[in-house]
Amino acid sequence: MSAVQQLTLSLPKWINDVVDWQKVYNTDDEKMALAVELSKQNVLRGTGGPFGSAIFDCVSGKLVSVGVNRVVPMHNSTAHGEMMAIMLAEQNVQSFSLSADGIKRELFTSCEPCAMCLGGTLWSGVKRLVCAATADDARAIGFDEGPVNASSYQYLTDAGIEVLRLVQRDAANKVLQHYANGGGEIYNG
Amino acid sequence: MSAVQQLTLSLPKWINDVVDWQKVYNTDDEKMALAVELSKQNVLRGTGGPFGSAIFDCVSGKLVSVGVNRVVPMHNSTAHGEMMAIMLAEQNVQSFSLSADGIKRELFTSCEPCAMCLGGTLWSGVKRLVCAATADDARAIGFDEGPVNASSYQYLTDAGIEVLRLVQRDAANKVLQHYANGGGEIYNG
Repeated sequence: MSAVQQLTLSLPKWINDVVDWQKVYNTDDEKMALAVELSKQNVLRGTGGPFGSAIFDCVSGKLVSVGVNRVVPMHNSTAHGEMMAIMLAEQNVQSFSLSADGIKRELFTSCEPCAMCLGGTLWSGVKRLVCAATADDARAIGFDEGPVNASSYQYLTDAGIEVLRLVQRDAANKVLQHYANGGGEIYNG
Repeated sequence: MSAVQQLTLSLPKWINDVVDWQKVYNTDDEKMALAVELSKQNVLRGTGGPFGSAIFDCVSGKLVSVGVNRVVPMHNSTAHGEMMAIMLAEQNVQSFSLSADGIKRELFTSCEPCAMCLGGTLWSGVKRLVCAATADDARAIGFDEGPVNASSYQYLTDAGIEVLRLVQRDAANKVLQHYANGGGEIYNG
């Protein structure tokens, strides 16, 4: 008997009820509002952890992909919101790089990335990272963020990725609090 | 039109020609030999980058999953060998944690993990990480490893993960060299 050699990762079915794929997103606030709304809906609908992400074309303002945390339902510790958004964006453009075609793309995430997702952001080819809640907000409800600190962000910046933090932190942190208060699973390895 | 919301990740078809799923692996050398062989076959057969991984049950010595780098063929910058092995092992045990059932498992990788995979190792629940080639060996042929350093490894150790490095480094590094000399794609973001 050979072990499993293939797996499928998917977003919840409600995504299309929440996401307007035709909309043009003009401001950081509009873009982050979507990431935070995804994190909130993921909690309310019980389809994963309190984290949402979205990737946009920086110039056109069009949405490329979205991601929500799918760790528990998908039996997959790597299925964080950022990783889902990155993997799906790469499927959409049919490339392992979100900058190979010369189009500048940006990742919005409802919470600062853990060590894995920060590394994943580097490999994805996005040229901008915008975060809402802080790693400390995630730690405050029991999530481990791994080895990620100021020097990790400096590494991104040195690689040419613009980083903007604390955009709509309070709204995103409210979702974290709601998840924790509702007894949401904290799934550290 | 809505964007792609599902994706599939798979190992190459040759895996079952190379992997003996029934074998009991008794030593670190036997286990690492498999990870390095996977990295080598992945290069020879042109199915991805020069990196292989395998996850074992520490007590029984049985193989739980294997992974090879699938970044270019799968259009997925996160499909590193370690990530593939982790995701597939979790599918096999049907849990987001490789330690939730009380069984101790270990990840063998042909090259020290990049920042993303080191974070992913933490979330996976493996209790032991064994590496062959060094991050510097990978950097020497042009791969970026991201923000990973001594403090990253200390974080793993502090989390209760035993780390062993430089096991069969030369054999693994030969595969990296062979890949680079053959003009293999270096796919940094």
